Amino acid sequence: MIPLPRSITAFSNPLVKRVRTLRDKKHRRDEGLFLAEGLRILTEALEAGHIPAYVFYASDSAGHPLVRDLVHAVEGAGGEAIETSRDILHKLSGKDNPQTVLGVFAEFATELNAIDRASAGIWIVAQSLRDPGNLGTILRTGDAVGAGGLILVDDCVDPFSVEAVRASMGATFTQAIAQARWPEFVRWLRSGPGQLVGTSLRATHDYLEPAYAAPTFILVGNEAQGLPDAYEAECDLLVRMPMLGKADSLNAAVATAVMAYEVLNQRRRS
Amino acid sequence: MIPLPRSITAFSNPLVKRVRTLRDKKHRRDEGLFLAEGLRILTEALEAGHIPAYVFYASDSAGHPLVRDLVHAVEGAGGEAIETSRDILHKLSGKDNPQTVLGVFAEFATELNAIDRASAGIWIVAQSLRDPGNLGTILRTGDAVGAGGLILVDDCVDPFSVEAVRASMGATFTQAIAQARWPEFVRWLRSGPGQLVGTSLRATHDYLEPAYAAPTFILVGNEAQGLPDAYEAECDLLVRMPMLGKADSLNAAVATAVMAYEVLNQRRRS
Repeated sequence: MIPLPRSITAFSNPLVKRVRTLRDKKHRRDEGLFLAEGLRILTEALEAGHIPAYVFYASDSAGHPLVRDLVHAVEGAGGEAIETSRDILHKLSGKDNPQTVLGVFAEFATELNAIDRASAGIWIVAQSLRDPGNLGTILRTGDAVGAGGLILVDDCVDPFSVEAVRASMGATFTQAIAQARWPEFVRWLRSGPGQLVGTSLRATHDYLEPAYAAPTFILVGNEAQGLPDAYEAECDLLVRMPMLGKADSLNAAVATAVMAYEVLNQRRRS
Repeated sequence: MIPLPRSITAFSNPLVKRVRTLRDKKHRRDEGLFLAEGLRILTEALEAGHIPAYVFYASDSAGHPLVRDLVHAVEGAGGEAIETSRDILHKLSGKDNPQTVLGVFAEFATELNAIDRASAGIWIVAQSLRDPGNLGTILRTGDAVGAGGLILVDDCVDPFSVEAVRASMGATFTQAIAQARWPEFVRWLRSGPGQLVGTSLRATHDYLEPAYAAPTFILVGNEAQGLPDAYEAECDLLVRMPMLGKADSLNAAVATAVMAYEVLNQRRRS
């Protein structure tokens, strides 16, 4: 293996070029790697046991104790820590005001069968979710409500896209993330306890009415189409939020959060 | 005035070029115009009394009754309806799968003093909000909970940006939108009834504890910094949502929605 430089200042550096391509899904899949930015998120990743394969940090942040911890952890695990410039961090992240650190992590996934559903009272299930910001925001909300993780059903946006990871604010590393087709998910769901709760425009129950049973699986549909009929039919409960205005639906991440906090609040009250 | 063509197929058409520039804030401000896409959003705008100055529609959608209604309304109001191609709609909107209609609207704003605070039980106040998706999503949630409108305090992102209008799903046209500096807002707020409720990491009250008084002004801070100390000090109530995970905050649009639904739910129960 050719030793990598410890300091990179040239845009033409092959590693810079390679890391930059990880903003595309195809390259992420080919390499099994993804990007996460920011000292706070990388520190949270570290605490959750995820050590990046590479960490890039701005020269002017080299003295920060958390940066030093990161560098130490990466080198200890056989990865590479690379001091670089803000310009190169900008090029890697695509952001105008890049964070001072950027990590390259190995992608991971949880098998449905490896999920211990009893470990949390709330699980979130998203079907054909298309917006990476929504996906990341749902992970962030899941962390807040003490959910166990996010199960992505059918063709969802890549949870390891830069936008999704950014919106998750670190929850990418703390929430379990599983992917499954619908029949596989239903088979797994029905192999144990669990209440599947869908939000639907056609529901007759207000979301405050039911007493939710743990583990509650909150099912959220595609941003434009909502849930397919057959998926709604599989739900143990279909509920709706009051909509007092002209619109007939909420943003997917908002609907998930309103629903998840109601489930959490019921548990807090009892 | 040079009559505009009723059908445009050339990318080089001056009107196409001009409308395309409205994706930039500078040009929106110079022209006092903004873009909104989609038959559903334009129909909602029409119902709310907002008729576009220009409407572009795809040739293959010309027969749709709602498109015909739009064209009729625009021409009746002295505006221009322009039949065009999907390619040009793509160029105008910047979206890969453009909507079949796109409207160019005059910007509007509500003066703080023109707001009738008694007309709604909930108002949302955002301070230095930076993300256009969050801003649009907050408008959409405001519509759903029956809020009167959104008051943008200090330097918020432009509510007429393409991304904000898209995320609002039409609420741009149904919610009042006012802009003010903080001292001006506080002066206006204190000139009448109203409870200012901020969400804060430093709050000691759980958000389910207080009985909220109408009109409730829900104050949400900047995505990265939260609310400045002096702004928190001005609040009648500071509350927090439970955060069970590693993260210490929610996405701004999510926090606003969780808070707004609690206020609405209290009103529904009483």
